[in-house]
Amino acid sequence: MFDCYYDELEIGDHRSFRGVTITEAHILGFAGVTGDHYVLHTDAEYAKRTPYGQRVAHGLLVLSCGAGLIPLEPGRVVALMGLDEVRWSAPVFIGDTIHPEMEVIHKEDREPGGIVTLHETIKKQDGEAVCMATVRALVARSPRP
Amino acid sequence: MFDCYYDELEIGDHRSFRGVTITEAHILGFAGVTGDHYVLHTDAEYAKRTPYGQRVAHGLLVLSCGAGLIPLEPGRVVALMGLDEVRWSAPVFIGDTIHPEMEVIHKEDREPGGIVTLHETIKKQDGEAVCMATVRALVARSPRP
Amino acid sequence: MFDCYYDELEIGDHRSFRGVTITEAHILGFAGVTGDHYVLHTDAEYAKRTPYGQRVAHGLLVLSCGAGLIPLEPGRVVALMGLDEVRWSAPVFIGDTIHPEMEVIHKEDREPGGIVTLHETIKKQDGEAVCMATVRALVARSPRP
Amino acid sequence: MFDCYYDELEIGDHRSFRGVTITEAHILGFAGVTGDHYVLHTDAEYAKRTPYGQRVAHGLLVLSCGAGLIPLEPGRVVALMGLDEVRWSAPVFIGDTIHPEMEVIHKEDREPGGIVTLHETIKKQDGEAVCMATVRALVARSPRP
Amino acid sequence: MFDCYYDELEIGDHRSFRGVTITEAHILGFAGVTGDHYVLHTDAEYAKRTPYGQRVAHGLLVLSCGAGLIPLEPGRVVALMGLDEVRWSAPVFIGDTIHPEMEVIHKEDREPGGIVTLHETIKKQDGEAVCMATVRALVARSPRP
Amino acid sequence: MFDCYYDELEIGDHRSFRGVTITEAHILGFAGVTGDHYVLHTDAEYAKRTPYGQRVAHGLLVLSCGAGLIPLEPGRVVALMGLDEVRWSAPVFIGDTIHPEMEVIHKEDREPGGIVTLHETIKKQDGEAVCMATVRALVARSPRP
Repeated sequence: MFDCYYDELEIGDHRSFRGVTITEAHILGFAGVTGDHYVLHTDAEYAKRTPYGQRVAHGLLVLSCGAGLIPLEPGRVVALMGLDEVRWSAPVFIGDTIHPEMEVIHKEDREPGGIVTLHETIKKQDGEAVCMATVRALVARSPRP
Repeated sequence: MFDCYYDELEIGDHRSFRGVTITEAHILGFAGVTGDHYVLHTDAEYAKRTPYGQRVAHGLLVLSCGAGLIPLEPGRVVALMGLDEVRWSAPVFIGDTIHPEMEVIHKEDREPGGIVTLHETIKKQDGEAVCMATVRALVARSPRP
Repeated sequence: MFDCYYDELEIGDHRSFRGVTITEAHILGFAGVTGDHYVLHTDAEYAKRTPYGQRVAHGLLVLSCGAGLIPLEPGRVVALMGLDEVRWSAPVFIGDTIHPEMEVIHKEDREPGGIVTLHETIKKQDGEAVCMATVRALVARSPRP
Repeated sequence: MFDCYYDELEIGDHRSFRGVTITEAHILGFAGVTGDHYVLHTDAEYAKRTPYGQRVAHGLLVLSCGAGLIPLEPGRVVALMGLDEVRWSAPVFIGDTIHPEMEVIHKEDREPGGIVTLHETIKKQDGEAVCMATVRALVARSPRP
Repeated sequence: MFDCYYDELEIGDHRSFRGVTITEAHILGFAGVTGDHYVLHTDAEYAKRTPYGQRVAHGLLVLSCGAGLIPLEPGRVVALMGLDEVRWSAPVFIGDTIHPEMEVIHKEDREPGGIVTLHETIKKQDGEAVCMATVRALVARSPRP
Repeated sequence: MFDCYYDELEIGDHRSFRGVTITEAHILGFAGVTGDHYVLHTDAEYAKRTPYGQRVAHGLLVLSCGAGLIPLEPGRVVALMGLDEVRWSAPVFIGDTIHPEMEVIHKEDREPGGIVTLHETIKKQDGEAVCMATVRALVARSPRP
C-alpha cells in the first residue's frame, strides 16, 4: 500500500504481500543488531522447558519483518505517524514463513494528501495471525499531470 | 523493569537504561534481517535531497534497539501483551546514541501477578525524545520464600 | 525490467534504478559471506600504499549490489541465462553511492515468452560507470486476459 | 591460481580449491548486503511451489563464494579484467557444499607480466557443475632475484 | 561475577550463567568478523571425513560466546588483566548449547579494590566441559555510602 | 605458521602476517555473535567519559581477528592445545589496523609430529603491541615422499 498515492487508496482496499521464512540467522541477526539475546530466542535448552517447547522469534522481529515485506516507493509516504494496538497472538518458530496483509480502514484529508489508517495482520503459512497492528501514515496526493 | 517481579514495581517507578550508538552497521544489519532497504535509510545521495539531509535509522530499528537495551530476566515477564501509541518524534541519524527510559504508569492484579503498563521514551544523547510507546506486560509475582 | 513481462519490454527501453551507499559494513558483510577478505578491501594501511590510496569494494560486491537494486517480480523472469562481458571500469570506495541502469538491447522469441538481452551499467554518484555487464534472461509472456 | 606470478602459470594448469557449505545464514547475509530478498531465496513456502521445490541460493552468491575460495596473494594479480560467459547450470540448495576449480586456458604477454585467461567451474559435492565462468586477469611477472 | 564489586566476591563463590545454542549463523558470523573460514568450521563435506564427523565451532567462538554470556556492569571491572590456561577439551557442534560457570579462586588487594582470579568452565547441555580458562581482573571496591 | 609441517618449523622462525582494519561493523558483528554489547564497545557517549575517550574493540575480538589472519592449511595442525598468558597491553580503537606476528619458541617431538609453542604478538599500525599470547599446537610431520 505504501507504493500508492493517497487518492489511489480506498477504504476496504486489501492486499496480501510476499512472505519470508524465519531462520536461526534472522534471530541471531536481530539479536545482534538490537542486543536482545533473551534466552527464549537464543537458548534451545531453556526454550525446551517453556510452554513453547522451542526457541521463539522476537515479537519485534516479527513486526519488523512484516514491515520490511511491504514495498515502499519514494514520494508516497510523507511520514509514518505511528503504530497502535500492536498485539502478538501466536509464537513464530524457526522455519515458520510469515507474510503481512494490509487493509485500509480510514482516510482523512490533510495536506499534502491525507492520513491513511491501515490494519496490518501478519500471518503464518497456515493462515494463523501472529501479529496485528494499526498503522497511520501521512500519504501524498498523486502528482498532477 | 523486566528484571523485577510484579510486587517489586510501583506506579511512578522510573528507570533510565544504558545506550547504544547507531552505526551504518546497525542500519545495514536491520535492513538485511527485515528486507527494508528503503532509500532514506541506505542511499546517502537520496537522503541528502530530503528534509533530513542525511540517512535516517528505520523507526522500527530505533524501537527495537530501545527494547534490546532493557534487561529481561527469566521468570518475571510472563507475556508481552502489546504496544500502544508508538510514536516517532525525531529522526535518529548515524552516530546518534539512544537510550530508553521506562516509567510504571498502571498496575492491575491478574494471575500470576499482574499487568504492568509502562511508558517508554527513547532519547538521544542531547535528551531529545525520538520514540515513545506504551508497553503492557503480564508480570509474575515474586516467588514466596 | 525484471518486473515486466516479455511483451512489455521493447528494444531501447532504458531504466535507472535506486541506489545504495557502500559502507564498511557492506565490505565486511560481503567478505564474511564469501570468505574474500583480501587486504585491498579490508586493510586500510595496505590500501593506502596502492594506487587506489584507500580500501576498495570487491568487484563482485558492486555487481551483486547492482543486481539487488533491480526489482524482481515472481512470474516474469523464468531463468537467468547468464552474464557476459562483465567489466569493472573504476573503483568503488567506502561512501560511494552506486545505482544500476538497464537497457534492452535484444529480444528473441522463445517459449514461454522470449530471451531478453540487457545492457547493465552501474554508476557512481558522479555518473561515472564503475561496472558493465550484458545480462540474458528468459522472460515469460504476460498472462492472457 | 591468484597466488602465482605470470611465469609460474602454464596453459593447462588445473587446480581444485577448498569448499564451503551454503547455509541459510549465507543466503540471509547475501540478501542483506545486496538487498536481493527475492522469494525464491527467502520464502520456503513460495519455493516449495516452484519446480525447485525448495529455496535456492542466489546465482551471484554462488559465483561470489566460488571467487572467495580462491586464494589471492598481494603482488600477483594487477587487475581483474573481467568475467565472460558466466552460466549457472544447476541450482544450489541450502546444505550443498560447493568448491571452485580453475584451469589456465590462455596466456598473452603484456606489461608487467601478462593476461591470463582461466576457466572456472564451481561444483557441488556430487561433482555436478553449478556455475561456469571465464576469468581474465592481468598478472605480474615474478620479481627478479 | 563482573556485576559485583571486589568486596562482594569471596573465594569459593560459584555461579552458573545462561546459555546459548550455537548455530550455523554463529559460525558464519564469527568467520566473517575474524576472517577464519577454516574448512573444519565451514565445509560439511571436509568435516565429515575428519574424526569429528561434522563441522566444529571455532575454539575462540566458544571462548568468546562464553565471555559474552557473563553480565558486566560498568564500574566494577577496571581492567581485564589476562587469560591463562585456556584449554579446549571437547568439540562444540552446530546445535549444541553452551553456558559458562565461574568460580572465584584467588583475591589479592590492590587499588582501587583488588585482583580477582576466576576459573571459568564452559559446558555443553549434557554437562561436559568444552573450554576452561583462568581469568584475572582488577575489580573496584564498592562505593562508600 | 599453521601452513607448515612440524619439520618445516625451527625455533626462532618469525613471521608477520597481513592486517585488518577494525571497523564499527566488526564491533557490532562480534557483539552480535557473542552477545557482549558492553557499553565501552557500543556506546560512544559512555566511552567518551572513560579514560579511553572513545569506543574500544573487545579484547577477544582483537585476539580472534589476530588468529583469523594466520593462514591454516588442512593436515598440518592436528590440535590446538591451548593458549597461555593472553595479555592486552593497549586498546584498539575503531579505524586501527592490526596484524599478528608469530615466533616459534619451543618444539617437542610427539606423535604424529610434535608440539610447537609460538609467541604471538598482535600489533597496531604504529607498531605498538596490543595483545600477546603463547599458543601451543600439535603439528603433523610432513608426509614422506
